Amino acid sequence: MADIHYPYPLRPTASLRRSASLQAEIVSVGTELLLGQIVDTNAAYLSKALSEIGVTLHRRSTVGDNMERLRAALQDAMGSSDVVITIGGLGPTMDDITRDGLAAAFEDPLQLDKDIEQRLRAFFAQRNIPIIDSNLRQAMAPVYGRSIENPNGTAPGLLFEHLGRIGIALPGPPNEFIPMVDNHIIPYLRAKTGGVGAIRSIVLRVAGIGESMVEDRVKHLMTDSNPTVAPYAKVGEVHLRVTARADTAEEAERLIAERAAQVRKVLGDAIYGVNDTPIEGAIVELLRRRGETVSTAESCTGGLVAQRITDIPGSSDVFPGGVVAYSNISKTDLAAVPQETIMQFGAVSREVACLLADGVRSRFNSTYGIGITGIAGPGGGTPEKPVGLVYLAVAGPQECVVEKVNYIGSRSIIRYRASQTVLNMLRMTLVPKT
Amino acid sequence: MADIHYPYPLRPTASLRRSASLQAEIVSVGTELLLGQIVDTNAAYLSKALSEIGVTLHRRSTVGDNMERLRAALQDAMGSSDVVITIGGLGPTMDDITRDGLAAAFEDPLQLDKDIEQRLRAFFAQRNIPIIDSNLRQAMAPVYGRSIENPNGTAPGLLFEHLGRIGIALPGPPNEFIPMVDNHIIPYLRAKTGGVGAIRSIVLRVAGIGESMVEDRVKHLMTDSNPTVAPYAKVGEVHLRVTARADTAEEAERLIAERAAQVRKVLGDAIYGVNDTPIEGAIVELLRRRGETVSTAESCTGGLVAQRITDIPGSSDVFPGGVVAYSNISKTDLAAVPQETIMQFGAVSREVACLLADGVRSRFNSTYGIGITGIAGPGGGTPEKPVGLVYLAVAGPQECVVEKVNYIGSRSIIRYRASQTVLNMLRMTLVPKT
Repeated sequence: MADIHYPYPLRPTASLRRSASLQAEIVSVGTELLLGQIVDTNAAYLSKALSEIGVTLHRRSTVGDNMERLRAALQDAMGSSDVVITIGGLGPTMDDITRDGLAAAFEDPLQLDKDIEQRLRAFFAQRNIPIIDSNLRQAMAPVYGRSIENPNGTAPGLLFEHLGRIGIALPGPPNEFIPMVDNHIIPYLRAKTGGVGAIRSIVLRVAGIGESMVEDRVKHLMTDSNPTVAPYAKVGEVHLRVTARADTAEEAERLIAERAAQVRKVLGDAIYGVNDTPIEGAIVELLRRRGETVSTAESCTGGLVAQRITDIPGSSDVFPGGVVAYSNISKTDLAAVPQETIMQFGAVSREVACLLADGVRSRFNSTYGIGITGIAGPGGGTPEKPVGLVYLAVAGPQECVVEKVNYIGSRSIIRYRASQTVLNMLRMTLVPKT
Repeated sequence: MADIHYPYPLRPTASLRRSASLQAEIVSVGTELLLGQIVDTNAAYLSKALSEIGVTLHRRSTVGDNMERLRAALQDAMGSSDVVITIGGLGPTMDDITRDGLAAAFEDPLQLDKDIEQRLRAFFAQRNIPIIDSNLRQAMAPVYGRSIENPNGTAPGLLFEHLGRIGIALPGPPNEFIPMVDNHIIPYLRAKTGGVGAIRSIVLRVAGIGESMVEDRVKHLMTDSNPTVAPYAKVGEVHLRVTARADTAEEAERLIAERAAQVRKVLGDAIYGVNDTPIEGAIVELLRRRGETVSTAESCTGGLVAQRITDIPGSSDVFPGGVVAYSNISKTDLAAVPQETIMQFGAVSREVACLLADGVRSRFNSTYGIGITGIAGPGGGTPEKPVGLVYLAVAGPQECVVEKVNYIGSRSIIRYRASQTVLNMLRMTLVPKT
């Protein structure tokens, strides 16, 4: 998490404890949560972020879009915690009640924030959308506190500091919520705890070996209670979280670095990156360092590999382009796969995967070419070529490497695993051999 | 959900309300939840199952493995609800406190259940593992109630009926939890409500207009408390949830259908689908019905549109393929965009977007072609062509429609919004004009 200095110092609040053990509570707001229509991933994200800076989470609550219940939950939370953080219910519509609920709980009258109003008006004007009164509810900010910038949406967050407590309101859409947690809330709360009693962690990202194998290799490093090493299985990869507690951040970081080095010694190149870097990020970096490029010819993944690579900023330096060759004719037209080869071996075959990779490599004049052909399902499987069968190829200057895999799972899972495996194949050809 | 008859009738409890509106609360127990190490998918699953049988969920709480906090949460829950359901904390170890916490809250002394003891001993003997005292804690069952069978684990569930309340304890592992909810808890609670009281809901998915505008148009339909109509903003679209309560499922469904028809009258073609169908699903369906096809030429979205379309099973019928024309040369090579046009207007221009769409349409001989060019950032922006500027084109047999948009947000968000808008543009050309 970036160490961003928080630009607006708050007025000190006498009764707020300044200690290593700030107590917090999260209140998630939304009837859709209580109806089970969405899973509260935001609450988990925030819980984790709080634990990493040593803020103790007492309890989480979820209430619907119901003012009476929201107020009861806020009252409970303020009775036992220093910090109350709400998620959701900040939209412009009538059933968005969090703003008023927190204002009541913190005895804050709210006032119109001219800056936000101006920003909202500009936002709507730019899009040629008439602004209506309810939109301006989003420009109301605490008198004892302020609003929190939300670069990805119209609803700013709110920060209350009153009655010896901190109240924070964050919007529900994850693409707005997560950056606000990372860039504002965590730096702000970390400053509040005086940086005392730090928890730090790092995630080592592992591809190409399964969870139980990873655990088997590092289990001698998993017995200590500080730092801890914990594996988490993800789709197509394993994350190893190393967490340390210490009096200072420096000491916690030293402990982590030491343990991470021991893990790296055991797992070697299977670790492709740390923290939030996905495997496509590692690949773009490796290619850039080597001054090389890759192009893609995808059948069953339908553009997923290209999309993942181009999701990385600056990928245009290493990725000239790709083709999605879904029909047989397009395989011939776009990647020069001979029609006869398709007839002889079938579109889903080792031969076609390699010809796709080689064909697209020539077409884009790139150092490497990726070729993928398979059956993502749910239809289209046969006893010889069942759903989940995928051929993955990486063609380079010297050779074409092909892997045959059989995945189980939904269409989306099969496609994602295929993209993950082929990206790891490319990565393994790029890492310096030891 | 299967309609399984519950085999053990409970003794009637005089003070328990038997009504259409049984009130429930969920308490999830586990420090790993408060540390954000796992996401509470169980709570969402149970919430949805309860709503489907008309049990009203008041609130959900999450506490750690801490007896004091668990008891406080249970006390709160029993103060306002007829039914309290706990998830997790039923294991054999010391930090599994739910059993004792519920026993205290329900003033139930617990007793050893000989049947469960025998089953546990057999389980351990079969695996040649010595049974230790703490394992036998899992054989303790309520005196005022009983245990609930768990065929997939060692921890049985617990059912308390005392003090005019129902208490239910379920284990945390989803493969144990979910079958117990489906096969025991839901049939049991449905019987308690006398089968009376159903909640049904439908999501109407809206593209092309923003949340506040949607609300403005349907606000006269949002005032009733049954059925309710509630808008939720998603990235690039708005979901309108219509929820109805009634004595019977049929009546609830009739209420929904009636209200949904009123909403459709107001929003018309802006509604592209219902429930879990994404916009790309609606498009594949529309194209299939019309016997038409689409191909894609993507620059800044890097294959995202192709990937979304091909994520729909059976999309190969309507999608021959696409190109990811990231470099200028590839725009010329793959989509026949003249080099001079790129020089004259720039790669990010109205002209190039249309030529991409037209070029790919010819190349794949498809009915429609999609062309996208823009600046997804974070680098590459200029004052004239800032990050977020995207030209979106849909070429058809008659014409090429282009839209110029300015998005704000991260690279991923800009790309996603671009894909969403262009998919909606295609959809609008496909829906029959009224």
